[in-house]
Amino acid sequence: MKRVTIKDVAKMAGVSYQTVSLVLNHPEKVAQKTLRTVQETIAVLNFVPSMAARSMRAIRTNTLACIFFGERAAYDNRSFQIQDTYWNNVLQVLGRVADTHGYALMQRSQIGDDAAAYALVRDLFLAGRVDGVVAVVERTGHPVLEQLKRHGLPFVVFGTRDPAFSYVAQNNEEVTAEVVGHLHAAGCRHIAFIGGQRDGRGNEDVEERQRGYARAMREHGLAVHAPWAVSGDWSLASGHRIARELCGTGDRPDALIFASDRMALGALKGLHELGVNVPGDVSVVGFDNMHYDDYCIPPLSSVHSPVLEMAQASVQMLLDQILGAGAAPPVQRVFPAGLVVRESSQRAGPARR
Amino acid sequence: MKRVTIKDVAKMAGVSYQTVSLVLNHPEKVAQKTLRTVQETIAVLNFVPSMAARSMRAIRTNTLACIFFGERAAYDNRSFQIQDTYWNNVLQVLGRVADTHGYALMQRSQIGDDAAAYALVRDLFLAGRVDGVVAVVERTGHPVLEQLKRHGLPFVVFGTRDPAFSYVAQNNEEVTAEVVGHLHAAGCRHIAFIGGQRDGRGNEDVEERQRGYARAMREHGLAVHAPWAVSGDWSLASGHRIARELCGTGDRPDALIFASDRMALGALKGLHELGVNVPGDVSVVGFDNMHYDDYCIPPLSSVHSPVLEMAQASVQMLLDQILGAGAAPPVQRVFPAGLVVRESSQRAGPARR
Repeated sequence: MKRVTIKDVAKMAGVSYQTVSLVLNHPEKVAQKTLRTVQETIAVLNFVPSMAARSMRAIRTNTLACIFFGERAAYDNRSFQIQDTYWNNVLQVLGRVADTHGYALMQRSQIGDDAAAYALVRDLFLAGRVDGVVAVVERTGHPVLEQLKRHGLPFVVFGTRDPAFSYVAQNNEEVTAEVVGHLHAAGCRHIAFIGGQRDGRGNEDVEERQRGYARAMREHGLAVHAPWAVSGDWSLASGHRIARELCGTGDRPDALIFASDRMALGALKGLHELGVNVPGDVSVVGFDNMHYDDYCIPPLSSVHSPVLEMAQASVQMLLDQILGAGAAPPVQRVFPAGLVVRESSQRAGPARR
Repeated sequence: MKRVTIKDVAKMAGVSYQTVSLVLNHPEKVAQKTLRTVQETIAVLNFVPSMAARSMRAIRTNTLACIFFGERAAYDNRSFQIQDTYWNNVLQVLGRVADTHGYALMQRSQIGDDAAAYALVRDLFLAGRVDGVVAVVERTGHPVLEQLKRHGLPFVVFGTRDPAFSYVAQNNEEVTAEVVGHLHAAGCRHIAFIGGQRDGRGNEDVEERQRGYARAMREHGLAVHAPWAVSGDWSLASGHRIARELCGTGDRPDALIFASDRMALGALKGLHELGVNVPGDVSVVGFDNMHYDDYCIPPLSSVHSPVLEMAQASVQMLLDQILGAGAAPPVQRVFPAGLVVRESSQRAGPARR
């Protein structure tokens, strides 16, 4: 699509391009009626002034935004509290890394439709409130990313490997295969992987983990049983429920891999209630390597996510875009996650079934 | 202290006051050398343009900042990850509440000296990057608050009852007395309260809780023993260590109140290792009512903090200041926290010792 220019806006709004420029730079000098007309036209045309032009004016907001697109359920309905989640940590670490570069971090969530998503971001740039965006999306091909790119706005995708854009990610597939190998070596043969969904939709992070799980199960000659193909909703309650459902009968798996420690923590509770011994009867492994893992009963094995490395790289990539000369090919970096073995999956000896 | 005006800056910098105005509003139009001189003078004089003058220009950033002053240890040294902490929740809830008002939330931490603290905030306002600040301080009388007030910058203190300023807080003293009463009714007579410190310094939140504890112990005729006067550092590890130290001998307390669930979670683990039954031998109560409390072994009694109510009130108070006519008396609101009883403190029957 052809890039919208300031002249397109002026023509459609029926004003001179100097007036549009005034709206962009000194809105307080523009009459209310004209201001509204031009701003509406800017919105209709999805116009964003070119970054090159802006940077010639040497305006820096020294602010980055981390925006979650479509993460509706990231807000826990119970009094808006998001607690001990992976994304909570990502925000904190990003804020800290931005801090070390003298940048503030602004957080926003956008849970409406795709047009609203782009309008939100465009307005942040238009209003001179951010220099760049860390974009969190659930899957590749989110339309807001294409629009950001078309308008030359600095952004990096966090966590999702969209081949068209700059991103930071972790090696989910490989590390999940490693978890299966670890459990196999410890004698487990009936290994279930429990993914996570929000509002009934998965994300590509989880799909990568599922691929790694399926591949490793094949490579070790292990069968994947249909009843194991369940997903939680990332909550403690869903891990608790699923562990009880899968392990409440004699025909249970001998290992459970959960896509988050939060779900795994709920599962440990469910297994404790059932009188199922961890790791004697069932091994449990989570993802995220939360601080509380050491204090679970028993301590929880987990996949450590390279959040710090991803945050550092994404902020650096943003600064390179912001301070750089202009369009450059996407920078795409994948960081290794690593399994941290604790008591919940330490079991010696051969297979028991 | 007399308020610094734009004329003071002009005089000291040896320029006209129109030049200072230009620096504030259109720095791109000012020669580099003059710009630097004026900006340095602004910094030396701690000058901030009056909010009234700014609002006449109808400039809104639609951004609020939550700034932690002096919370050095809020950044966990292990890869910058702040996990499942009370302040993490506060940030998230504030962000969500700001969102509903169409405001973004910017987060910053300031861990240098007090002059640097004020410079950070002044620059955020000067650069037109925030409209108001939620200030988190560890105790009343932090000098940055007085400076913010002197310059008429909108701010609300979150969590600390500084009598000179607008704040939101919770009734720590009363609710801690309620916890002691609950434990006493359940037959506990040897009740210890474990506070929290960062870098060896306490905060007023914890001191309020200690006062409520001491008062209730007196009222119930219970003795406070010297060895119980210990504080953790808010970490899981410190709760674990303290529980083992206090309960590793026969002469142990029969109830432990921790100033955070995080420390209480570590304590549950320590008691489990010692073979001490909770609540049969020792009752445990935490603060914060984290989601994982229901999934602890056993489920953890805890004090629920009115974070949502405090966040909503503080944002509303900021908006009233930002959109209001000018100086107004401080607005100070205290919200009730409430004890949520779970298995870790449910014990029937009379005192055992």
